[in-house]
Amino acid sequence: MATETGYDRDAVRAVLDRARSESRAALTAPEGKALAEAYGIPIPGEALATSADEAVSLAVELGLPVVAKIVSPDILHKTDAGGVEVGLSSAEEVKAAYQRIVDNARAYNPGADIQGVQVQQMVGGGQEVLIGATTDPTFGKVVVFGLGGILVEVLKDVAFRLAPVSAEEARAQIGDIKAAEVLKGVRGGEAVDTERLGDVITRLSDLVTDFPEISEADLNPVFASASGSVAADLRFVLDFDPPEPPARFTREEILASMNRIFKPRSIAIIGASNEPGKIGNSVIRNVVDGGYAGQVYPINPKADEVYGRAAYPTMADAPDGIDVAVFAIPAKFVASALEEAGRKGVAGAILIPSGFAETGEQELQDEVLAVARRHGVRLLGPNIYGYYYTPEHLSATFCTPYDVAGGTALTSQSGGIGMAILGYSRSTSTGVSAIVGVGNKADIDEDDLLTFFGQDDNTNAIAMHLEDLKDGRAFVQAAREVVPKKPVVVLKAGRTSAGARAAGSHTGALAGDDKVYDDILRQAGVVRAPGLNELLEYGRALPVLPTPGGENVVIITGAGGSGVLLSDAVVDNGLSLMEIPPDLDESFRAFIPPFGAAGNPVDITGGEPPSTYEKTIRLGLEDPRVHALILGYWHTIVTPPMVFAELVADVVGQARAAGIDKPVVASLSGDTEVEAASAHLFAHGVVAYPYTTEKPVQVLGAKYRWARAAGLL
Amino acid sequence: MATETGYDRDAVRAVLDRARSESRAALTAPEGKALAEAYGIPIPGEALATSADEAVSLAVELGLPVVAKIVSPDILHKTDAGGVEVGLSSAEEVKAAYQRIVDNARAYNPGADIQGVQVQQMVGGGQEVLIGATTDPTFGKVVVFGLGGILVEVLKDVAFRLAPVSAEEARAQIGDIKAAEVLKGVRGGEAVDTERLGDVITRLSDLVTDFPEISEADLNPVFASASGSVAADLRFVLDFDPPEPPARFTREEILASMNRIFKPRSIAIIGASNEPGKIGNSVIRNVVDGGYAGQVYPINPKADEVYGRAAYPTMADAPDGIDVAVFAIPAKFVASALEEAGRKGVAGAILIPSGFAETGEQELQDEVLAVARRHGVRLLGPNIYGYYYTPEHLSATFCTPYDVAGGTALTSQSGGIGMAILGYSRSTSTGVSAIVGVGNKADIDEDDLLTFFGQDDNTNAIAMHLEDLKDGRAFVQAAREVVPKKPVVVLKAGRTSAGARAAGSHTGALAGDDKVYDDILRQAGVVRAPGLNELLEYGRALPVLPTPGGENVVIITGAGGSGVLLSDAVVDNGLSLMEIPPDLDESFRAFIPPFGAAGNPVDITGGEPPSTYEKTIRLGLEDPRVHALILGYWHTIVTPPMVFAELVADVVGQARAAGIDKPVVASLSGDTEVEAASAHLFAHGVVAYPYTTEKPVQVLGAKYRWARAAGLL
Repeated sequence: MATETGYDRDAVRAVLDRARSESRAALTAPEGKALAEAYGIPIPGEALATSADEAVSLAVELGLPVVAKIVSPDILHKTDAGGVEVGLSSAEEVKAAYQRIVDNARAYNPGADIQGVQVQQMVGGGQEVLIGATTDPTFGKVVVFGLGGILVEVLKDVAFRLAPVSAEEARAQIGDIKAAEVLKGVRGGEAVDTERLGDVITRLSDLVTDFPEISEADLNPVFASASGSVAADLRFVLDFDPPEPPARFTREEILASMNRIFKPRSIAIIGASNEPGKIGNSVIRNVVDGGYAGQVYPINPKADEVYGRAAYPTMADAPDGIDVAVFAIPAKFVASALEEAGRKGVAGAILIPSGFAETGEQELQDEVLAVARRHGVRLLGPNIYGYYYTPEHLSATFCTPYDVAGGTALTSQSGGIGMAILGYSRSTSTGVSAIVGVGNKADIDEDDLLTFFGQDDNTNAIAMHLEDLKDGRAFVQAAREVVPKKPVVVLKAGRTSAGARAAGSHTGALAGDDKVYDDILRQAGVVRAPGLNELLEYGRALPVLPTPGGENVVIITGAGGSGVLLSDAVVDNGLSLMEIPPDLDESFRAFIPPFGAAGNPVDITGGEPPSTYEKTIRLGLEDPRVHALILGYWHTIVTPPMVFAELVADVVGQARAAGIDKPVVASLSGDTEVEAASAHLFAHGVVAYPYTTEKPVQVLGAKYRWARAAGLL
Repeated sequence: MATETGYDRDAVRAVLDRARSESRAALTAPEGKALAEAYGIPIPGEALATSADEAVSLAVELGLPVVAKIVSPDILHKTDAGGVEVGLSSAEEVKAAYQRIVDNARAYNPGADIQGVQVQQMVGGGQEVLIGATTDPTFGKVVVFGLGGILVEVLKDVAFRLAPVSAEEARAQIGDIKAAEVLKGVRGGEAVDTERLGDVITRLSDLVTDFPEISEADLNPVFASASGSVAADLRFVLDFDPPEPPARFTREEILASMNRIFKPRSIAIIGASNEPGKIGNSVIRNVVDGGYAGQVYPINPKADEVYGRAAYPTMADAPDGIDVAVFAIPAKFVASALEEAGRKGVAGAILIPSGFAETGEQELQDEVLAVARRHGVRLLGPNIYGYYYTPEHLSATFCTPYDVAGGTALTSQSGGIGMAILGYSRSTSTGVSAIVGVGNKADIDEDDLLTFFGQDDNTNAIAMHLEDLKDGRAFVQAAREVVPKKPVVVLKAGRTSAGARAAGSHTGALAGDDKVYDDILRQAGVVRAPGLNELLEYGRALPVLPTPGGENVVIITGAGGSGVLLSDAVVDNGLSLMEIPPDLDESFRAFIPPFGAAGNPVDITGGEPPSTYEKTIRLGLEDPRVHALILGYWHTIVTPPMVFAELVADVVGQARAAGIDKPVVASLSGDTEVEAASAHLFAHGVVAYPYTTEKPVQVLGAKYRWARAAGLL
């Protein structure tokens, strides 16, 4: 909600009420001006003159030059009637123009009711920009800023923000467009007063926030200059029947349910089966074999015992105190079984079956959700592989168990992506706290999971694959709370128009315009993964890397060629190569051959023994002005891969023991032994990859993006 | 060389000769106009009027509106003297202006010699653009095109081309800028006549080509409109002492040497040694153990036999007919040993030792090059790991042998990157024809290697890592000859300013501005790899993938989530998702569940048996309207990974046997078994990756980029 008290809300209300009573979906120009005036959005000054002398005094008052326009209800096409003159820059010109306009109008339509001449301040100086607002299906009210004019229309150089926008956010939004430099005044032009320009954004964002029925607004063009910003044209579109905002749970409600779902005392498996190949068989085997220590109750009307556990014909027959019911039965039986589970007081229903909205059975899904709501049960799914939570050794899934505990919680909207998460994690021994499928998201959504993982001590990074957000605002709110504590990585699929079309045909969910997602996720501090592989790599690496204490990155490399590529990657990923101070440069030079290049990259040259790597890396770690290290290794007989890996692990380990905890990443060039060396380094807290100079720097860049968003730099 | 015969070269020569005689590095405005007129570059018309009536008739002739300016050698500051009037749009205005200007001038300086009034066509309509030329240290004369104005200055939206530029290339150059749409006329504006705009580019490019002493030229602004393009301002910078163009060998000379170097009858190893750990020991062991079938002559004054081969004290003592001498001796001994090798008539000297230009010993390197030139010996290196050529089982290197034969030739400027090539190739069983280190490039350069590999039947793709090009023009020429036959992939390191700085400190080579490299490599049809990993992946995959016959790409996926991400990747990589015709859509639908989504992606849904994959993939292969397939696999019990891999390999193999050879790539989502499945697919000609939806599409995109550049689509 806007908090500015200088707004005249009653004036806006009156205009909107009249429009509503007349069933209009747009405002007239005078109504638009009334809204602008009520919220202090600067517009060109204007007034009605009924004589040539009055026109002159008004023009002087408004400031020359001015525009003069005939005012007559009988003359619609003012220009055709010779009723408009622009660029009047002296009292004489205004006086003469008044007379000409009135004469022309009389000649054009002798019977016209001529009420006078409107004198309007002429704007057009400074930089043409546009400020707008729209109602996004995912995020609700968003405001847009961009430069005006043809070029920007073609290049689509705009920035979005969630409304309402604070003064600080508006400044950031203005700086976010690619051509922002234009506003600083190029080629000797005066710089735009971005404070006052941002104020217009803030005011428009408050207006559309206070009056949700304003579905779209355009201030275009706005003339922004050193002396202020004036909206020369305004357009407002109304929608008096906006979609209902989604229902929300409080943080306490969410956590109460989620804690029971992720840390259940006991689990019922509805449809647990002794028959191999059945999903209900896989689920109970995974739960039991995965090492879950709580009670497991198979629900199966045809068996006394399933996988060694006493079975119950229905939920009603099972013991009390069940926190989670996993559903491994066909879709059509879910609603009635959920009814029973609800009566039994379960906190969460894990709906593995497909055959709901994704196959067109939206009604069935709605029915199940209604049952859940009635009983206060939260639903995960339907149409999912299940979920894992390693701190509880819980593998409630029909896939295979996973037990490498660690700090990353991964979620996926798609089952296929979930399988890639599992395979990649196993292949790379990624330590995870949780893997969760959200599928159709009939109920539990990414913001519920963010809320839980954000406060979960077993989780220190969250990586999410998603195709849409059911409630973008709730997600942003949850992300803003979590980001200062731990990184949130998002792979938003359906980024491109072709991709978005595929999302539409897959889930029936309308994927939003990617630029809106991109800007608003960034505004929320989320690190966006450009692809699946990066989601997985960031998820694996971010919890391993300590948080950097500043922006000074130093490359130390045994291969000059890697140094060049690593430098390219540093720039590509928004990192800063430290300008090495002379004393530090001298210290590095003491360790490297005379033809090696100090500076940054520090090129220790290729034939050096382990001690050269060791001394230079230790120097980089111990100098407090250096905040992160990127290592380039070149396989030689003098320093074989595993020797390098062990020495780096040792040096970094010693520094960490001494309280120096800087992020260190490494690129290893060499024969296949560099693969084992990279794995050794990763296991010892150095994010290392073979055969790529890009990936280690990309991961470091992701850590930096998060650290900046979290306000830690 | 420009071929246009309508150019007045003598007029240009006269202007330049005068400037040279006056030791000037720039041309005056009238001289610039003379050059423009001599090469038919349109400039505003102008003429001198000595009476008001003459001014009127000239203005009508040139076309209204016009600008009028006093012409007097005694009035330098025309505006101060009231001697300039602009925007004169009628005969009356011109007449009155003439009189005012002359009166003002007389009042300003009564003694001035007034020669008349210059009447100049006033330009300013249409779109402001800039056309320029400069002399790039790598590529020589290049021309640049971009939009004019502040925004473009900030956004740096320009396109470069090698001069001279053909009419067709100029059109492509104009279309290459991001804001090219502006020229097509947006918001109802008239489209620019790009034919005539391109003609200005061509003419300027001919001018700077014909007169190399014009080191820089700026036509800025050029006003481009539907009725033509006029250069309103011209600037020429001269350099009468340009750097010597690099010496070049003919194609025949290059091939004569390269064929002997890559297919030697016999090899001498200077410094071959029995002492383990010495480079000369590693080299002879690798040559012998690698399986090289020709004669091997160790040159070692202290041994009778090295690694089982009879040794010779010096090259002079060795048998005749030696094609290659590999140098494994310290830098300081190279020149004299090369002298002997030269006398012996070797074609190539492989200079493994470091200690030349890269450590500041430029003189030593120059001396060695001079020896080589004297004897007609080509040098590879110095400062390299050596080279591999698998068709001859030749591993002339101190690294380890490599013998997986295949179609890719890989080269690297850096030894570290060479080691990454070796390790990656071994790890992925990449089939290579050659791996070559070029190091300091004292002599043999990428264009020599391109020329050889381009005609080498054992090579069908070339992947090069480079930090600079010694002779950019020779490289472009070689690339243009090779690209129609096989893909050329380049990783240009030092792309960014930080990277370029590191390149400078590494090799002493000035890395050119990346935008110039990017545009000109693209113009030459080269596929640029964004990073090391892509260089390796493209090198591995491009020879495996058949060339597509058209742009219609179809995604067939068992995981809807992968389909969305694959669609994103399709757009990211400049590919086109085929609009599936209704009959084909119906055919797909016949094979998939009713809730599966046909269209494109074809979503066969997750729980399907192998037969569904098989039928849909066969349909995609057999329908002639489909040109490439992207497969998304989702690991299920019903269709396990290796079952999928085998069926795809079979279906694709059957199609190929039947003469249907379309590129097929695959993304496999699942547990770790998808890794073996991906390897199986790769080995059977399907480019497949686990845990990534981006990489298979990126590789397919690279194949398409090449096919388009080769003129095959």
